[in-house]
Amino acid sequence: MNIDGKPYRTIWLNADGKSVEIIDQTKLPHRFETVTLRTLEDAARAISSMQVRGAPLIGATAAYGVALGMRVHATDEALDQACAVLAATRPTAVNLRWALDEMQKAVRNQPRDKRVAAAFARAASICEEDVETNRRIGEHGLGLIQAYAEKKGGERINILTHCNAGWLATVDWGTALAPIYRAHDEGIKLHVWVDETRPRNQGASLTAFELKAHGVPHTLIADNTGGHLMQKKQVDLCIVGTDRTTANGDVANKIGTYLKALAARDNHVPFFVALPGTTIDWSLADGSAIPIEERDPGEVTHIQGKLADGTVASVLIAPEGSPAANYGFDVTPARLITGFITERGVAPATPNALVTLYPEHRKVDAA
Amino acid sequence: MNIDGKPYRTIWLNADGKSVEIIDQTKLPHRFETVTLRTLEDAARAISSMQVRGAPLIGATAAYGVALGMRVHATDEALDQACAVLAATRPTAVNLRWALDEMQKAVRNQPRDKRVAAAFARAASICEEDVETNRRIGEHGLGLIQAYAEKKGGERINILTHCNAGWLATVDWGTALAPIYRAHDEGIKLHVWVDETRPRNQGASLTAFELKAHGVPHTLIADNTGGHLMQKKQVDLCIVGTDRTTANGDVANKIGTYLKALAARDNHVPFFVALPGTTIDWSLADGSAIPIEERDPGEVTHIQGKLADGTVASVLIAPEGSPAANYGFDVTPARLITGFITERGVAPATPNALVTLYPEHRKVDAA
Repeated sequence: MNIDGKPYRTIWLNADGKSVEIIDQTKLPHRFETVTLRTLEDAARAISSMQVRGAPLIGATAAYGVALGMRVHATDEALDQACAVLAATRPTAVNLRWALDEMQKAVRNQPRDKRVAAAFARAASICEEDVETNRRIGEHGLGLIQAYAEKKGGERINILTHCNAGWLATVDWGTALAPIYRAHDEGIKLHVWVDETRPRNQGASLTAFELKAHGVPHTLIADNTGGHLMQKKQVDLCIVGTDRTTANGDVANKIGTYLKALAARDNHVPFFVALPGTTIDWSLADGSAIPIEERDPGEVTHIQGKLADGTVASVLIAPEGSPAANYGFDVTPARLITGFITERGVAPATPNALVTLYPEHRKVDAA
Repeated sequence: MNIDGKPYRTIWLNADGKSVEIIDQTKLPHRFETVTLRTLEDAARAISSMQVRGAPLIGATAAYGVALGMRVHATDEALDQACAVLAATRPTAVNLRWALDEMQKAVRNQPRDKRVAAAFARAASICEEDVETNRRIGEHGLGLIQAYAEKKGGERINILTHCNAGWLATVDWGTALAPIYRAHDEGIKLHVWVDETRPRNQGASLTAFELKAHGVPHTLIADNTGGHLMQKKQVDLCIVGTDRTTANGDVANKIGTYLKALAARDNHVPFFVALPGTTIDWSLADGSAIPIEERDPGEVTHIQGKLADGTVASVLIAPEGSPAANYGFDVTPARLITGFITERGVAPATPNALVTLYPEHRKVDAA
């Protein structure tokens, strides 16, 4: 998407053909800086330090990490070692393991002298596939937004989103934000309510940054605000992303998503989840089995931001010594979800609709 | 309540009998400092700068402000002028106007030479009445908490609260926290989930401070977290305060209260609102008519906290120039409220139950 009129992706191969550039997301929204990855270790560090985050982007970065590793040693051992190092950076991201499997498949059967080229080619195609998947999510979501815009007779559509499921979480377009960018570019009048998304503030620091940089009208709100806005008919629809979706349509997403889904139902506001098929965990029957990550309480007691003098610092907002708890995700039950926006189309959040979209995952009756 | 073992109120007359001491709440939780009010102007500034906040405490401070004013001039004109200055500090707080009316009644009919003493006496009795009201709320709420504790067979009770309706918002005890202090002092095992309460973080800075200072076990959480905790059966009941309650039992309270009430209903968690009868607005049929204050967007884009070097500073958490919206309150409909905890007892959130508790407000049928 655009940053001040210039199109960017979150990751790209430099003109030298042997180094990779990423946007350092730990510096956003206060500074826009890119970082050059020249080695496997650079790529691993970029993932573990969260300079890149978002499951699809983590996968893409890991793929390039393998290619950078192959440039030094193109042996089977080096390939396995590279995958092991990268897999250990963020153990829970499903796309990371998928991308490493893809790299193994693309590289292992090649002769040594073709492995570097094969690895860079597959990393590039993983990126392209991600962009295409998200483009399609955007296309299907555009239809939805158009329908709501028509219902409002061309009046401005207000969309609420939580956390960051934007282009910064993917290679381009994003998942939840893809339909929004597509509709905005199409000239549909819209405005986005951006939940700040405590404790890590990905809404305030990443979603607001993305939307502002691309020129999409938006307003930052405290996470407490969405219910009131829905009561006052200031939200026409909600679109969020997901970290994991189970076979019955339950959705794990950033903590607080469930509260907005409850408010949406209470106020008859449609609540959509945008996702690529790869985030569906077909092995889990429902969301109760999804493990919820507990993170450092310091993310709750401290907040990072920019001081008046322009330096970035962390401030303590609680009494010294008060304990805090930090749960990363919650589960929104399928019954609260109006529909899924996928790369294959829009579907209700039911087990049947999901296997109809992804028939390759239909369980064959053993009888 | 206690601060590190020493009992405090939020406001008290100094030993000199002519100056008043308050806790400077703008410095909490990072510094505990008291401020001496010697003049009417000191009192007015303490209210408008939010060194004191919470409707009951604002009323008490204004009452002492009138007394301090009487020390300089005890004329009718000076009395009216003092009330006008104080009324202008926070135009929406109902208790402020009530307290000023009480001071007029107590002072105006006195001869000049008795007005100062009468004013100080009435200010003191307003404080005592507030403490007594809250003590009774605590007493009635204690019964509730005891019942839930018995149901759990003496296992620890987890109570979630939002914002600060503690002793810092009143003269002592608080409203929502009064039952919690009472139960804790009674030896009931309990633990409080403290919503940080963005954007002004009264949960993180005031409720966590109070509970820690009094020794009540608690854990600070992001406002997004309550729904997940309720899904995981980590919340036994919710108790919040209210800024205004309408005749049908709808409740305006700090923004985000409605979201927690929705989650409580979805997970069969009892949701109680603690209130003194004076916060009921009998003139409004339901909550839709309650005006919702819009505050400075800077409270959303900036957060105040303590830097590593111990100084307190404000940091920007959003992109420079991204707009923000800041709604102070939302309305929780009566249908989501399990009951009210008042100084006259516990009652369901229905119009009939309210007028049964407060029969002096029963509307007489004209026919």
